[in-house]
Amino acid sequence: MTDVQKVRTDVDNETFWRQVGLDIERHDELMSVLPPVFQSVFLSQQNRPEKIAYYDSFIQDLHGKRPKEVFERKNNGDKVIGAFCAFFPEEFVHAAGAVPLILCGGAEFPIADAEKILPRNTCPLIKSSFGFKISNLCPYFQSADLLVGETTCGGKKKMYELLGEYVPTYVLHLPHKKNDDISRNLWVEEVKKFKGIVEDLTGRKITDEKLRAAIDLANRKRLALARVYNTRKADPVPISGKDVLLVMQLALFDDAERFVKKTNELAEELEARVKRGEGVAPKGAPRVLISGTPMTIPNWKVHDTIEKSGAVVVTEESCTGTRYFTDLVDTKDASSSDDLILRMAEKYLHINCACFTPNEERIEDVVRLAREYNADGVVYYVLQFCHEFNTEYAKIERALRTEGIPVIKIETDYSDSDRGQLKTRIETFVEMLKASKARGAASLAEEGGIKASVSGS
Amino acid sequence: MTDVQKVRTDVDNETFWRQVGLDIERHDELMSVLPPVFQSVFLSQQNRPEKIAYYDSFIQDLHGKRPKEVFERKNNGDKVIGAFCAFFPEEFVHAAGAVPLILCGGAEFPIADAEKILPRNTCPLIKSSFGFKISNLCPYFQSADLLVGETTCGGKKKMYELLGEYVPTYVLHLPHKKNDDISRNLWVEEVKKFKGIVEDLTGRKITDEKLRAAIDLANRKRLALARVYNTRKADPVPISGKDVLLVMQLALFDDAERFVKKTNELAEELEARVKRGEGVAPKGAPRVLISGTPMTIPNWKVHDTIEKSGAVVVTEESCTGTRYFTDLVDTKDASSSDDLILRMAEKYLHINCACFTPNEERIEDVVRLAREYNADGVVYYVLQFCHEFNTEYAKIERALRTEGIPVIKIETDYSDSDRGQLKTRIETFVEMLKASKARGAASLAEEGGIKASVSGS
Repeated sequence: MTDVQKVRTDVDNETFWRQVGLDIERHDELMSVLPPVFQSVFLSQQNRPEKIAYYDSFIQDLHGKRPKEVFERKNNGDKVIGAFCAFFPEEFVHAAGAVPLILCGGAEFPIADAEKILPRNTCPLIKSSFGFKISNLCPYFQSADLLVGETTCGGKKKMYELLGEYVPTYVLHLPHKKNDDISRNLWVEEVKKFKGIVEDLTGRKITDEKLRAAIDLANRKRLALARVYNTRKADPVPISGKDVLLVMQLALFDDAERFVKKTNELAEELEARVKRGEGVAPKGAPRVLISGTPMTIPNWKVHDTIEKSGAVVVTEESCTGTRYFTDLVDTKDASSSDDLILRMAEKYLHINCACFTPNEERIEDVVRLAREYNADGVVYYVLQFCHEFNTEYAKIERALRTEGIPVIKIETDYSDSDRGQLKTRIETFVEMLKASKARGAASLAEEGGIKASVSGS
Repeated sequence: MTDVQKVRTDVDNETFWRQVGLDIERHDELMSVLPPVFQSVFLSQQNRPEKIAYYDSFIQDLHGKRPKEVFERKNNGDKVIGAFCAFFPEEFVHAAGAVPLILCGGAEFPIADAEKILPRNTCPLIKSSFGFKISNLCPYFQSADLLVGETTCGGKKKMYELLGEYVPTYVLHLPHKKNDDISRNLWVEEVKKFKGIVEDLTGRKITDEKLRAAIDLANRKRLALARVYNTRKADPVPISGKDVLLVMQLALFDDAERFVKKTNELAEELEARVKRGEGVAPKGAPRVLISGTPMTIPNWKVHDTIEKSGAVVVTEESCTGTRYFTDLVDTKDASSSDDLILRMAEKYLHINCACFTPNEERIEDVVRLAREYNADGVVYYVLQFCHEFNTEYAKIERALRTEGIPVIKIETDYSDSDRGQLKTRIETFVEMLKASKARGAASLAEEGGIKASVSGS
């Protein structure tokens, strides 16, 4: 483990990458893949909101500008804490003046390296994350003074033990259940313990005042995202699903204050579009809710395939979606430090991840979101070998069918090997949604006709 | 869910199976597979201990005699509690005069049924267990008044939610960590809660006296198994690995008192064999430790392949092996009911399952067992898609290599599709062990020769 200190950040990217210990040759190879994909997935879209330009420029220099900022913070004595999950209580990190990052790997590239140590039959997110670290392919990983894992699944839990051999790693103990006092208490204690860990690492006391400010900051980030999502309920929808996915993905990397500002600006533009009835897809285009496992950069293939099939993604029940921002930490009646921690613990325990048993709330969420966003159908997205989300599909599928909402399950990895099959399945699904909408419209028209003739008789 | 009551047990098997609601046609098909496999795997062996006959006869009427006994207990008002894991605190069940069974599925047969609901990419044990229940193919499952799951892995945890739709199911909350007070406390509280659940189900109070007697019974079962295992340290080994596996597997089904008696009789015979230097494999045959996931009836293929390759399995670091019986519940200084529960909780938390993080104790166990049983090599056995045991292999492999102990990993399911590949890999491994032993013997002889010539100079 090399402790990179006082990295010069007023240099070109390659010099910077060398300083932080990246494997330059392979990193060049990795980065060369991104521009054509980004062009095809994002830049080829028509009539995007203007404010999306900020996120475009962020991703176009993903391993440059922002990592340099992060290293500049390190130069100034701030610590960097990386994590892999929405359960990461980032408020403490902000409160300690440290930098929180969520580092889940979304790329196929480092997976072959990871498979020298991890089993092949493991979730691509786990393999990609591990591969990025052990192969020195990511400046964000290089910046982390501490990685924070969590016990959401067996694959991650055991991977973190191995990751801990490369960089200091703490694994948050998230219980399997959340509906009884003893489980909740375990989590509250764990959140409290994590506060101490952040304080010890940074050498900075997290005062109530600082924590309140950090909670407010994280809440404002959540509210800005919720504001963007809210505009997607309109028809036509003012922004594509993949553009929102990009925003969500960058929420995990960007400076929080700046991200809040930029995202509120985007929301404002989108609200104006909704007022004007301006959309990125024609009014009446089939509306899809995506539900399931998270999608991290550059994992855009399902959104891309859906939207190139003529449908539009209107919301994501996902950790790169509603699960990340829906609940706020409510500090209203919190009068003590313990109260604040309790409220934080409660907020995180409300994330309805498939790691919990039972998890009926998530099933209700999916149905409710499908209604709220007027989804015509649901694409259930599972990262390969994710037992929790994969098995929970049985209940979700039944609930959606009961409500008359069509659903398909896509289980995939980060490779392009199933691109053709995926395209066929999704196109067929979208055609089915279109046909169903046309029938619905016809029967409504007919019903209207009958009503008209009845009232006219 | 049908509540089967007052089943007649003085009838032939088919009548019995009809009464308990089995799908007779498919059950016949399932049962027709067993005899030829049992013949090939077990009965074809030479020079088996005489006392193994008891276990042979048990398995040859696996769905007859013992399930009838269990239903006879039900006729007398006793409850039946099924479980799927070594963490199941069976002492409470004995203490309440109920029947504990461990019902993990080991057969391929019901998996296709399970895959209509569960994901294909899930561990075969999970799919088989679920399939046995939903397809009415197992009289033991039919007898259960309550099923007890546990949170050892994501696949099982989520499967139990679905299983609960067919039969009342309680999921024991086993924490992810065990080395801190809050985790241990959660488990102690869970064990206490489970005692109440057993009392409520059976309508019988678990007094301290009854619990002590039950703890003693379970301890005697563990000691009898340990006694059998202890004889396997001898060379030649007095019993084949697959015969011991059979004994282990039946420990989960048989009446405990009878099992203790029969297993001590077997141990006595084995101890006499060791004294006489009598074995089932030639002295000097390569000795294999199997480490990993459990093997339940009729999952015998890895043992069978190893032993047909000319090696002998001398121990199993497994839940159908040492993890099941190594620790006893120590009641010596337990003066209160809470003390007894605490000791039970502690015993179960000592099971070094890969579900825990960290789990360094298991790595130490594997190395220690390999030494204690003089293993020449280790076969690391992983049920397909078991992330916990699969990922933990990285650490185990490294520890064994450091100790100079050869190891291979076998990841497989219940099908026969990889039988050929498995055979080739295992045969190659065994040949390598033989060659290594021969080299070791030659170099020892040479060393002896040098010493002799030195001392003779």
